[in-house]
Amino acid sequence: MRVLLYRDLTAAQLAALQTDFPDCEFRVATTAGELARETDWPEVVFGNAPARLLQQATQLRWLQIVSSGFDEYAALQDHGVTVTTGQGLHAPIIARHVLMMILLFTRGQWHFARCQQEHRWDRKPLLPKPTEGQTVGLVGFGGVGQEVARLLQPLGYRILALKRQHSGAPPAGIDRVFLPEALDELLAESDQVVLSLPLTPETRGLFGADRFARFKAGAIFHNIARGSLVDESALLENLRNGKLGGAALDVFSDEPLAPNSPFWGLANVIVTPHIAGHHRELGAQVLQRFRVNLRSYLAGNSVAPAANFLRGY
Amino acid sequence: MRVLLYRDLTAAQLAALQTDFPDCEFRVATTAGELARETDWPEVVFGNAPARLLQQATQLRWLQIVSSGFDEYAALQDHGVTVTTGQGLHAPIIARHVLMMILLFTRGQWHFARCQQEHRWDRKPLLPKPTEGQTVGLVGFGGVGQEVARLLQPLGYRILALKRQHSGAPPAGIDRVFLPEALDELLAESDQVVLSLPLTPETRGLFGADRFARFKAGAIFHNIARGSLVDESALLENLRNGKLGGAALDVFSDEPLAPNSPFWGLANVIVTPHIAGHHRELGAQVLQRFRVNLRSYLAGNSVAPAANFLRGY
Repeated sequence: MRVLLYRDLTAAQLAALQTDFPDCEFRVATTAGELARETDWPEVVFGNAPARLLQQATQLRWLQIVSSGFDEYAALQDHGVTVTTGQGLHAPIIARHVLMMILLFTRGQWHFARCQQEHRWDRKPLLPKPTEGQTVGLVGFGGVGQEVARLLQPLGYRILALKRQHSGAPPAGIDRVFLPEALDELLAESDQVVLSLPLTPETRGLFGADRFARFKAGAIFHNIARGSLVDESALLENLRNGKLGGAALDVFSDEPLAPNSPFWGLANVIVTPHIAGHHRELGAQVLQRFRVNLRSYLAGNSVAPAANFLRGY
Repeated sequence: MRVLLYRDLTAAQLAALQTDFPDCEFRVATTAGELARETDWPEVVFGNAPARLLQQATQLRWLQIVSSGFDEYAALQDHGVTVTTGQGLHAPIIARHVLMMILLFTRGQWHFARCQQEHRWDRKPLLPKPTEGQTVGLVGFGGVGQEVARLLQPLGYRILALKRQHSGAPPAGIDRVFLPEALDELLAESDQVVLSLPLTPETRGLFGADRFARFKAGAIFHNIARGSLVDESALLENLRNGKLGGAALDVFSDEPLAPNSPFWGLANVIVTPHIAGHHRELGAQVLQRFRVNLRSYLAGNSVAPAANFLRGY
């Protein structure tokens, strides 16, 4: 079994794989150039290798990626490749990042950070808001949305959630559930909006000028999902004209974000480099998932969780 | 009854006081200069008026302050003045501020904020830490410490608490309780240390060079209590030499912090202007407490909560 590792593993991690999986031959590629020389070789690839190269991988049967989103690998479904993801590993991490960002904006910390840069003691006791009574709208109620809701509850936020399907009473701790067609109603009630939808043909560009017009004046927009869910020039316009009070943006339609992007310099925008779903132990957690799946694959059994390209998550 | 309001109330708030308390004569002073001309006049003062002026207020019987800490008014106890405080109103607010700061350091956000200033996309997936398994040491377990503990629990932090008195099992959610004499043991185990003690003769300068030597290497220090609990030059030294990984400082021995203070410019320090206990609704909450107390005072009953100068909180 030929396994290509598109991951920057430690020597110890690689040696352990070789010891524990003697029936596998492992090769390592950590750049697109190295991978390009190996495309015909592997049956299995571990890591978020460039999709355009994997489409040329004639022997590839199974791809284990690190991310939860798999939109960039949509073309592989026509090649009979099973894609398994990191789904479930990132959600608790992202939710903690989102909690931090929600608090930053509730507390007006973007202002105090700016004052610190200027060595300026500028008290604004009317700037921080109580968490109690602030409404957070969760656009997407999968792993991330549910965990954000759980973390927000002890703080007294009122929580709204958009779900694809729903009937009956709202889940515990959720004030009200909205179906997709009622997105604009959720936006009209939310002081902060957290976007955690998958990128699919349906959701691409979902947040355009018309959508931002439906936000409450001064609302805060969080995107930890995919940049292409958003019309970024409409977002910029609404941040500049004050319709939006601020944004926490971890993802962009083009990454890395160019040094001359206007998002970097806006006082009410917090830019992070697609890091919301990461921490120092994630690599080991994903490797562990790969090892469990590899054991299963070698035994002729299924691997999980498999990307559902029809559904998009 | 002569009542001096050392608060910047709205006209509506003042008019409501005059209507609701017809037996009181209200005067307003919002600067030390205005107050200095009125020191012999009031029996009651509402607001954190300068202590040195209140010591000359010969008719003063009751002072309602806004803050929870009352260390600066210690001299009034010899003048037979009852001091009531804002105790209980700030703790939930401060705890939300502390939660935000704990998350900022857990997530390495001070680094990403610096990168944003430089328009630099610098992913550091090994910088953010999991919240699970990180240890937070609460030095002080009054209203602030208890609320911080409640908010941290859903995030998986391990929580230690220092209490003045304790026996039996730790409170729910607390991993271990330390008595004051075991402070250094708590410090040795804590990744982040939150200081929320009152300032008393006992606690002044409690965190000096010897104390910082007991911290874990790279630990984060939070102070939302009083600057004078800390030897600030020892703190600076330990932030500069890397013994401490960072600090979130809301209070300083001299406030406002001078523009040339070195704390402003340290990359791993977050300075806020004594704002941790504030939000836009606090003023109304404190006014409501004053109104309830004033009603009681006029009826010859007690006012609360009264500062206990012997105990210090």
